[in-house]
Amino acid sequence: MNGFQRKRTLPVTRPIFIIFDLLMKKIVDEIINTLLGILSPDDVIPLHEPFFYGNEKKYINDCIDTRFVSSIGAYVTQFETLLAEFTGAKHVIATVNGTSALHISLLMAGVRQGDEVLVPALTFVATANAVTYCTATPHFIDSNPVTLGIDVEKLDHYLQQNTRMENNICINTTTLRPIRAIVPVHIFGTPVDMDPLMKICNKFHLTLIEDAAESLGSYYKGTHTGTFGLCGALSFNGNKTITTGGGGAILCNNEKIALQAKHLTTTARLNNNFHYVHDQTGFNYRMPNINAAIGCAQIEQLPYFLKKKRKLAFKYINAFEPVKGVAIINEPDYAKNNFWLNTLMLDKPDNKLLQTILERTNRMGIQTRPIWTLLHKLPMYKRCPSMELSCALELEDRVINIPSSINLVD
Amino acid sequence: MNGFQRKRTLPVTRPIFIIFDLLMKKIVDEIINTLLGILSPDDVIPLHEPFFYGNEKKYINDCIDTRFVSSIGAYVTQFETLLAEFTGAKHVIATVNGTSALHISLLMAGVRQGDEVLVPALTFVATANAVTYCTATPHFIDSNPVTLGIDVEKLDHYLQQNTRMENNICINTTTLRPIRAIVPVHIFGTPVDMDPLMKICNKFHLTLIEDAAESLGSYYKGTHTGTFGLCGALSFNGNKTITTGGGGAILCNNEKIALQAKHLTTTARLNNNFHYVHDQTGFNYRMPNINAAIGCAQIEQLPYFLKKKRKLAFKYINAFEPVKGVAIINEPDYAKNNFWLNTLMLDKPDNKLLQTILERTNRMGIQTRPIWTLLHKLPMYKRCPSMELSCALELEDRVINIPSSINLVD
Repeated sequence: MNGFQRKRTLPVTRPIFIIFDLLMKKIVDEIINTLLGILSPDDVIPLHEPFFYGNEKKYINDCIDTRFVSSIGAYVTQFETLLAEFTGAKHVIATVNGTSALHISLLMAGVRQGDEVLVPALTFVATANAVTYCTATPHFIDSNPVTLGIDVEKLDHYLQQNTRMENNICINTTTLRPIRAIVPVHIFGTPVDMDPLMKICNKFHLTLIEDAAESLGSYYKGTHTGTFGLCGALSFNGNKTITTGGGGAILCNNEKIALQAKHLTTTARLNNNFHYVHDQTGFNYRMPNINAAIGCAQIEQLPYFLKKKRKLAFKYINAFEPVKGVAIINEPDYAKNNFWLNTLMLDKPDNKLLQTILERTNRMGIQTRPIWTLLHKLPMYKRCPSMELSCALELEDRVINIPSSINLVD
Repeated sequence: MNGFQRKRTLPVTRPIFIIFDLLMKKIVDEIINTLLGILSPDDVIPLHEPFFYGNEKKYINDCIDTRFVSSIGAYVTQFETLLAEFTGAKHVIATVNGTSALHISLLMAGVRQGDEVLVPALTFVATANAVTYCTATPHFIDSNPVTLGIDVEKLDHYLQQNTRMENNICINTTTLRPIRAIVPVHIFGTPVDMDPLMKICNKFHLTLIEDAAESLGSYYKGTHTGTFGLCGALSFNGNKTITTGGGGAILCNNEKIALQAKHLTTTARLNNNFHYVHDQTGFNYRMPNINAAIGCAQIEQLPYFLKKKRKLAFKYINAFEPVKGVAIINEPDYAKNNFWLNTLMLDKPDNKLLQTILERTNRMGIQTRPIWTLLHKLPMYKRCPSMELSCALELEDRVINIPSSINLVD
């Protein structure tokens, strides 16, 4: 009986699978051939590598010679000045990493226990972790299918339906908790549409904190990302456009807030001669001088890096233009992207196709990766408030990052 | 009338003041002359400076050449191995600083919201801050007048009077909160008397987490500090015996706890191919490779540094031996000190004498400093539970740190 059934079912299902497999193989082959038109994997082509063509050695050796390697040193101040000049932020505070920059920024927004903070479900986990460090709760919002950032229109509608204003505080009508702030993330360097988002912030009295960890060198209508809200957080992790080993920075246009933020990053110690007096629970978040020294050398090369990244991005964009079913994310009309990580987008969600591309590319030495697991699926965040996340869920099965280092173009 | 009064009071009070002033001047002169027998201030002699006589440049330049500067790299593992060999700890996790090492250690001890943790009132603020990061409450305990660490006998008596055991948990009978852990600090490198302290930990079911930030190279009865409890935290800040710019490490003898601790320091990301899945709220606390490279070079020189520090300490101890009213803190019989910061102790608390010594030494270029403001006096900790702190309060008016860098002896 079992043998008979097997015989009967095989001829019915097999041809369909064969056709599907052949179709998929054709699509994957075309994608891989297009990638091979740009990339030549000898060994492994990493997703993103740092490069040190400038004064890195000179500056770090100077730290050793002068013995200023730690939290006090000229390179920290110099790096902050160079970042302020580059981004146009009035004040910059260099920190030990991007997560700590975001943590302090949220504290500056007054985020405290019992508050909620709106964050995209589609982002690196640090965005939500920083909210948790403030003993507040992340509240997940959906993504825009073009930029991968916040879906601003959907957010407006959602907040109208699910919140009420009480004494100028936006209250979640389900949890009855205040929604204190919102953290747009400029995913892979593509700026969120800030004008309508800032309108929403004004309308619902939400403090704007930008997670610009991925968007150093990205501009919204000519203004650098990370400088629109109360504070913005940059990251200089090893995989970012420029690196300091580990590091981050807070961008801020308000002098009082900037002073408070710096105070919190340096254990909240009062400037009190040789006495150790601290006026609040501060943090050990100051960037060391040796890391800032690398940052100073890297930022000198940033315009060159951005030029190369732009060149690579448009090489990808043009190469994939004729390929059906996929495209490379381009910058929106309102933006200039840093093209930190180039992103292949399937026209429609297709987990099997996505996994096949990931497996074949990685097997042949082209490092690619899917987008992060959506945060509302992680065990520690699955009970957090969330809007309906249909777009982010689709993007999980549409997005693949492809190699984006500056050495991939001449 | 006023004129008459002034005339009458002056001859009575002046001679007493004059005698006091002369006596104090004599004591201060003798202290300063004794210091000048060892120190020759040309410009300024800092309290503690790092020195880089070894492979620092070689290793950091190698990081630039290989482009491994960030969270992944051979120097991080190498530094952890060298620290394990040096301290005898079975497992070591390098972190971004000592505060983060302490934070993770306390989480490993199960410290959570609503708990209390016993910490000395006399320590750097990071010890209590790390407790606060766990959303727990520091509970302050008094100091031993010889080691400046915990007064173990007084603590035993206090816990007997002020706690009761409930289901093997030590409950503060006043606040009704569980006292989960205790954090002895080996102040300035002098080990706390661990045997009786560990007895107390067993008796009251307190998890032992050592703050060994200041005691790399200090031993209690032949065993390295930081290896007695569940975890110990080291610091490699710029002012420590060895430095990594900014950095710290967790020492741990329990493999399971060590794996969990490392997991938490690396955003709690699961090892799941190229997927980003995190199983709890983790932290961005991993030491970057560039900082670990400095650490590897520094630890190679650690035995030499410790020898120099010991030589300087005994030079101070011997020089101050004949000076009345003061002494230099020596190592207890049970201990071998690293003599991180040498400490001048007045026999009796005398704020005026202390301030005069501080002012005169600093004015002449000998950097000295008083001990930290007691933590229970700081605004954010003044409402925390505390035992009576008579010894710590006296020490505030008795203790002065004096220059302790290794270049101060041949």
